[in-house]
Amino acid sequence: LELGGSLITNKSKPFTERPETIKRLCQEIHQARQEQKNLELIVGHGGGSYPHVPAREFRTAEGVVDNQSVKGIAEVQDAAARLNRIIVRTLINAGEDAVSIQPSACCFAKNGRIQEFYTDSLERFLNLGMLPVVFGDVALDTKKGCCILSTEVISAYLAEKLGGQKIILCGTTDGVLDKKGEVVLKITPANYAQVKKHLGASDGIDVTGGMLHKVEEVLELAKSGVVSVIINGNKPGLLRRVLLGERVPGTEVSADGRGEKVKLYG
Amino acid sequence: LELGGSLITNKSKPFTERPETIKRLCQEIHQARQEQKNLELIVGHGGGSYPHVPAREFRTAEGVVDNQSVKGIAEVQDAAARLNRIIVRTLINAGEDAVSIQPSACCFAKNGRIQEFYTDSLERFLNLGMLPVVFGDVALDTKKGCCILSTEVISAYLAEKLGGQKIILCGTTDGVLDKKGEVVLKITPANYAQVKKHLGASDGIDVTGGMLHKVEEVLELAKSGVVSVIINGNKPGLLRRVLLGERVPGTEVSADGRGEKVKLYG
Repeated sequence: LELGGSLITNKSKPFTERPETIKRLCQEIHQARQEQKNLELIVGHGGGSYPHVPAREFRTAEGVVDNQSVKGIAEVQDAAARLNRIIVRTLINAGEDAVSIQPSACCFAKNGRIQEFYTDSLERFLNLGMLPVVFGDVALDTKKGCCILSTEVISAYLAEKLGGQKIILCGTTDGVLDKKGEVVLKITPANYAQVKKHLGASDGIDVTGGMLHKVEEVLELAKSGVVSVIINGNKPGLLRRVLLGERVPGTEVSADGRGEKVKLYG
Repeated sequence: LELGGSLITNKSKPFTERPETIKRLCQEIHQARQEQKNLELIVGHGGGSYPHVPAREFRTAEGVVDNQSVKGIAEVQDAAARLNRIIVRTLINAGEDAVSIQPSACCFAKNGRIQEFYTDSLERFLNLGMLPVVFGDVALDTKKGCCILSTEVISAYLAEKLGGQKIILCGTTDGVLDKKGEVVLKITPANYAQVKKHLGASDGIDVTGGMLHKVEEVLELAKSGVVSVIINGNKPGLLRRVLLGERVPGTEVSADGRGEKVKLYG
């Protein structure tokens, strides 16, 4: 499950989280896990207006580019971890046994892609029934010096490594929107080239590429059978329902296998 | 370098750090690293009145003992990470490129001893000239379910794995004190059995065993040539001087090699 940065923070205002939204989402997660005890879940969250501020200032996504870049790594890691504390604390308050897994301490990258991610601790937390929480973070990079790992890159990596079946992306829109603001109901490897031309842009600061990036990360996984759904986290109850396996309004990203032509617009 | 929990927090008051002390210690670290650019350093800090509160409540050091233990793991991790954010932020403000390395995400233990600690990221941060910060934390344990890893256990493990030469322990006393309150100048494997009888107890809450535990952890390392010094972090300037390699008042824990009889009392 991924909680988008623009959902849990105000992206147009530096270091501003949305406490009420975070609280409600954490409660929905807890409700779903109370109703379905065997729901094995990893939560990931974006950084929004926390790490994106220093990341943009220090051009962290580009790598170690000048003598301020290393300071930038420290600033981005701190900002990402600060937001993570808020999310984990709110999950614990909601009744979840939530634990942080700090990506920058557990992995490194090569040209922006995860090269190695230590997941032994994470898997042991899962086995205890706990709720591991990863997040968009800085990482050291063997090619560029450093990079930004979006929650999507981390989710995709973990889904593949740990055999996840489903990725839920909670954002601030009713799914993937086209330029007219309408929801694209289904995206598949077969229709993506066509869909891409119609996709809209994301609002506010975003150093990790917005909706296009999200879709492309999960589209890769669709090829190996992982189904992703992109839903509106601002609509109360939707997250709980989708966690319980219900079909809810949003965009599904999956493999059609047969090059099936789906209706693009909702 | 290890900053003791009783130095950076008020151990008799839950969740109370000492902002002025933390600030001064961070500035001393930065001054020393400015004066000696090639000073390769890992900072570790204790939890003091942060994680020790839930750790005691949930008996986390004993392992998974009842149906509240898993909740305890989440609470202890959160409390430890909260204090870590304060330390890392203060180091960054002092001018250091400090980064957290969250032990519970990077390692697991067996019967309270570290079984595996992922240090690839930590070593890469060191190579970039950054300042990794570890801390006393909860860890999952293959024997007991969970345990508390003290900063000493982590420091000792890292010193051994990464080839550290020196461990500096900053506490609130002028070194290891005997029952009369006098400083024991030198502890060696040869004189420890005798010294031990005279050691005092530590103040406030401590789930990791206090001074005795600290000494025993570094004494193990002394056998492989690592020298440890235990100094008073409340005496301004002492930390900076010891980081720069000066001899300062305190207790030295090292191997004497020849079973040398040292004067026990200062």
